[in-house]
Amino acid sequence: MTQPPKTPLLDKVTYPADLRKLEDRDLPQLAREVRDEMIDAVSKTGGHLGAGLGVVELTIAIHNVFNTPEDRLIFDVGHQCYPHKILTGRRDRIRTLRQEDGLSGFTRRAESEYDPFGAAHSSTSISAGLGMAVASELDKTDRRVIAVIGDGAMSAGMAYEALNNAGALDARLIVILNDNDMSIAPPTGAMSAYLARLASGRTYMGFRDFGKKLTAYLGKKVDRAITRAVEHARGYVTGGTMFEEMGFYHIGPIDGHSFEHLLPVLRNVRDHAEGPVLIHVVTQKGKGYAPAEAAADKYHGVNKFDVITGAQAKVKPNAPSYTSVFAEALVQEAELDDKVVGITAAMPNGTGLDKLASVFPSRCFDVGIAEQHAVTFAAGLAAEGFKPFAALYSTFLQRAYDQVVHDVAIQGLPVRFPIDRAGFVGADGPTHAGSFDTAFLATLPGFVVMAAADEAELKHMVRTAAAYDAGPISFRYPRGEGVGIEMPVRGEILQIGKGRVIKEGAKVALLSFGTRLADCLLAAEDLDAAGLSTTVADARFAKPLDHDLIRQLARHHEILITVEEGSVGGFGSQVMQFLAADGLLDNGLKIRSLVMPDLWMEQAKPEVMNAHAGLDRAGIVSTVFRVLGRPAAFGVGAAG
Amino acid sequence: MTQPPKTPLLDKVTYPADLRKLEDRDLPQLAREVRDEMIDAVSKTGGHLGAGLGVVELTIAIHNVFNTPEDRLIFDVGHQCYPHKILTGRRDRIRTLRQEDGLSGFTRRAESEYDPFGAAHSSTSISAGLGMAVASELDKTDRRVIAVIGDGAMSAGMAYEALNNAGALDARLIVILNDNDMSIAPPTGAMSAYLARLASGRTYMGFRDFGKKLTAYLGKKVDRAITRAVEHARGYVTGGTMFEEMGFYHIGPIDGHSFEHLLPVLRNVRDHAEGPVLIHVVTQKGKGYAPAEAAADKYHGVNKFDVITGAQAKVKPNAPSYTSVFAEALVQEAELDDKVVGITAAMPNGTGLDKLASVFPSRCFDVGIAEQHAVTFAAGLAAEGFKPFAALYSTFLQRAYDQVVHDVAIQGLPVRFPIDRAGFVGADGPTHAGSFDTAFLATLPGFVVMAAADEAELKHMVRTAAAYDAGPISFRYPRGEGVGIEMPVRGEILQIGKGRVIKEGAKVALLSFGTRLADCLLAAEDLDAAGLSTTVADARFAKPLDHDLIRQLARHHEILITVEEGSVGGFGSQVMQFLAADGLLDNGLKIRSLVMPDLWMEQAKPEVMNAHAGLDRAGIVSTVFRVLGRPAAFGVGAAG
Repeated sequence: MTQPPKTPLLDKVTYPADLRKLEDRDLPQLAREVRDEMIDAVSKTGGHLGAGLGVVELTIAIHNVFNTPEDRLIFDVGHQCYPHKILTGRRDRIRTLRQEDGLSGFTRRAESEYDPFGAAHSSTSISAGLGMAVASELDKTDRRVIAVIGDGAMSAGMAYEALNNAGALDARLIVILNDNDMSIAPPTGAMSAYLARLASGRTYMGFRDFGKKLTAYLGKKVDRAITRAVEHARGYVTGGTMFEEMGFYHIGPIDGHSFEHLLPVLRNVRDHAEGPVLIHVVTQKGKGYAPAEAAADKYHGVNKFDVITGAQAKVKPNAPSYTSVFAEALVQEAELDDKVVGITAAMPNGTGLDKLASVFPSRCFDVGIAEQHAVTFAAGLAAEGFKPFAALYSTFLQRAYDQVVHDVAIQGLPVRFPIDRAGFVGADGPTHAGSFDTAFLATLPGFVVMAAADEAELKHMVRTAAAYDAGPISFRYPRGEGVGIEMPVRGEILQIGKGRVIKEGAKVALLSFGTRLADCLLAAEDLDAAGLSTTVADARFAKPLDHDLIRQLARHHEILITVEEGSVGGFGSQVMQFLAADGLLDNGLKIRSLVMPDLWMEQAKPEVMNAHAGLDRAGIVSTVFRVLGRPAAFGVGAAG
Repeated sequence: MTQPPKTPLLDKVTYPADLRKLEDRDLPQLAREVRDEMIDAVSKTGGHLGAGLGVVELTIAIHNVFNTPEDRLIFDVGHQCYPHKILTGRRDRIRTLRQEDGLSGFTRRAESEYDPFGAAHSSTSISAGLGMAVASELDKTDRRVIAVIGDGAMSAGMAYEALNNAGALDARLIVILNDNDMSIAPPTGAMSAYLARLASGRTYMGFRDFGKKLTAYLGKKVDRAITRAVEHARGYVTGGTMFEEMGFYHIGPIDGHSFEHLLPVLRNVRDHAEGPVLIHVVTQKGKGYAPAEAAADKYHGVNKFDVITGAQAKVKPNAPSYTSVFAEALVQEAELDDKVVGITAAMPNGTGLDKLASVFPSRCFDVGIAEQHAVTFAAGLAAEGFKPFAALYSTFLQRAYDQVVHDVAIQGLPVRFPIDRAGFVGADGPTHAGSFDTAFLATLPGFVVMAAADEAELKHMVRTAAAYDAGPISFRYPRGEGVGIEMPVRGEILQIGKGRVIKEGAKVALLSFGTRLADCLLAAEDLDAAGLSTTVADARFAKPLDHDLIRQLARHHEILITVEEGSVGGFGSQVMQFLAADGLLDNGLKIRSLVMPDLWMEQAKPEVMNAHAGLDRAGIVSTVFRVLGRPAAFGVGAAG
């Protein structure tokens, strides 16, 4: 392991107030030390590297110029906030990033007063910042609000809604557009192309001269009454027209790694801007760390790595990841049916759709960070007889809930929803947990809602979804590796609404929905050993439910436990609703529904989170024992 | 009642194919007759009037120029589609609009092949159209896709996401921006101001000359390789830069009531456009009907009315509407606490926030059709110590689900959510039903979820929400009038998580959440009369649940029925989850959860819909009888 870097200047900076005592000429040295410290920390924890490296100078400049935390600094997404954390009293814990009980990998209100608004999902910062800017005006304070947002995040409609409203309110909000031409994958969309035009060619090349003029101009104070003709003429030269049409004063593009450019612009804006200002800053993701600069993904998210070589620790997988199983199964179906198409919202690699794109580039669509559009775009394709797979993470599907309801479900259009990262996701914490998808989809009439118990089941479900044309259909699967089960050459078409009994017993029935099945089988071993003959079934479907299976389990067992890695309101609630309506609870069935606990669980390894939730082997066993009034024989099991 | 209008030309037009046989010079006459027919029909049914009147010429021109239904015509929102319905084989049913078993007030795939994509919520048309345009390219058809979207709908991020993607995909999509400077209220936002600039002043005044040039230019076929310099020069003259930056070829603004302008432009675009085109059309909402043209809201939504005078039938209310009770209670709280602020997404009148705006204009924010931004903007205000009330309809809150989860609930910020139009909404049909809010909010840790049983309860809940600072809190209430209960001068602060027993009984317990309480009380009368002593309780809270109350009901009654005007997964599911976990089902409680049925219920009067759902007096009684194995004594009662 390498030695921690030498950081004599940074050692004197615990809070931004310390940083403000430095001379401007010291800041490049501070930036180097922050960069070294961050690289060293992430080499030990893993996490988001490239984004933070790109904003070291910008972060220092903002804290130097503005009076944080009284002035509010909001980072969009927040995965670029490690330098900010190092400079705001959290350096001593920076090597606990994303670990259980450690620092969050994102900004977080509960963690520091320097994080006035938490983030993790994209494109929220301008809305939140506008709320704060308006609050400042209502409170008649002199507070500044700065939102730092990446170019990729500008593809989301939410950012546009906020710009649109900010321009109309004429609020004193400073938006810093951090343009590194990389969100996670290279961004797509017309806005991205537009920003690229702004940041390249004559406009940007000519910045040195033009920047001086602009700065001088701003120094004279922004004149809101400037004529439209002049605005247009300026737009023609700087390319800033679009943001100006939205009511923003637009500055840039400027070099986001140069304090000579950053400091005067930020100081001018701090002192003179009255209405909304957008500063277009160009940075390089992964800046200052050669292996990151050279990598295609700029080391967006990394495992632990060797600082000298940049070589990342390879985790030897025991089984293929669910994502890769999905991706390969989808390619297989696409090869057999040219109506199969794929849609991703800026996550071609994360969802595995890059595999489809490499084989069928014209049949795979990366729409940018734009889940709402992704779903209705898919609905349009489905209306024309295509078989769209709109592959989203569970947590991001929340962004498109209305489109799922209004454009897909009410119209009964056969959009396929592969739902990745369902359940606990580990280090990304509560903002990324896939908790609610079963609850919010199974409430929708006509939806088919599946969960894969293992990677072979996932393959069956990909084929089942491809074959099912009668309406919307979803299938959820978790982050991480499968269980190592033997894989079929091709998936089978499952019968809609039919589960399967894995193991027959007599007294206790465990009815699993999804990958908790493995722990149910282990729990059943323990229960059998304790003299409690246990049946284990895999529901496969939360909707439509397998009524015959559930009736049979209810009638022939004393205890029925549903198990799912999701919130209340989902599979277990569907089962209880049916049991109640069917009269199967009238004579005393000991029913329990094990779900995620009613709290926002902090980051930890998924297996730890499942244990805390009582959804693991020990938790299931102890629930059964508690129902029977026996003392728990194993572990803790938090569920009740 | 007036005689139906004379429509000799329209009488020959049943389908667009008939319309295409007419001479161009006949189209103004056809427009007059369509307008007369539509005014007459809506005078008898009520419904959306102003929007349809504004697009009569545009609708005729599109059907004249394009080969519908093979070419796809998508209306955004869809409330402007009455002329379209008259011209596409549905004239014979036009006087059944929005009635039970009648035509939908929106476009609807199931209704006609001329409705290729249904709508009702705003801003979906470009996404759907892009999906269809891409499908057409993959299928190698020559099909055109036309999306007609209003200027108000352009404030929603979803429209921007779709423009952004369309520009990048370079798909052959025709977007017609119908700019009438009125969505429901006058639209707000920078985009709206931008469009107003485009549509006024020199640019639009000079159209006649410039339009000829443009048309001539298009006639030469759009040259995609046109230099950026020329584009910019053109943008300077026409003001089209912003859409052009998004990758669209931009035409307009043109006069949307002039066939001389519409037909040549549409024909040129039909024949020559290769990539995405945006045609900016200026129309007048309510055009051609003097009372509508003169009215501030342009007769957006009307009751039945007298065609000659425009006087609308007044429905004499028995009690104040829930919306007005909320609005007045909020103003009262705002007068007493200057931290109370209101946020609406383009519905100042519908939500009643116009009352707050009239008293405290600086503390009420109409953010445009932008629910996502509305919620996170509110979160920003809450983070600074304000008490924001983000007033949305249940169905539109779906648009902001991720923001509710990620920006409000995970951070525990005290945003207040007044949820109007909760439950069945009647004539607007399934797209507007407020079905899912309790399910999708009560799953969120830390949320307080209330429902008002009557208008006095609503007043209590407004005050309770204003006083509650510990986290997010919501309260739902239906469309329409209250029950006429005596109103307190000011609301009381309710104890969080405590329900109330309204009537004590011994055998049957009815536990209501929301305004179904009135039917529960009526059902209790019937049950008491049948010898079944019945308790009725008002839960007030779906979260946190009143555990003591529920335990007491479960322990001292043979039957417990939960009743709510919402989907499965909501209040009833929360109650059953608790009962199961607490062991209260183990010894045989006859539990039933009455919820909306698992289907998309079509438009009808809310009381009819509740009867179909088994959520009314008769339905509740017959459920109890069925549980007891008695023959149903009353009505039908569909629930089981």
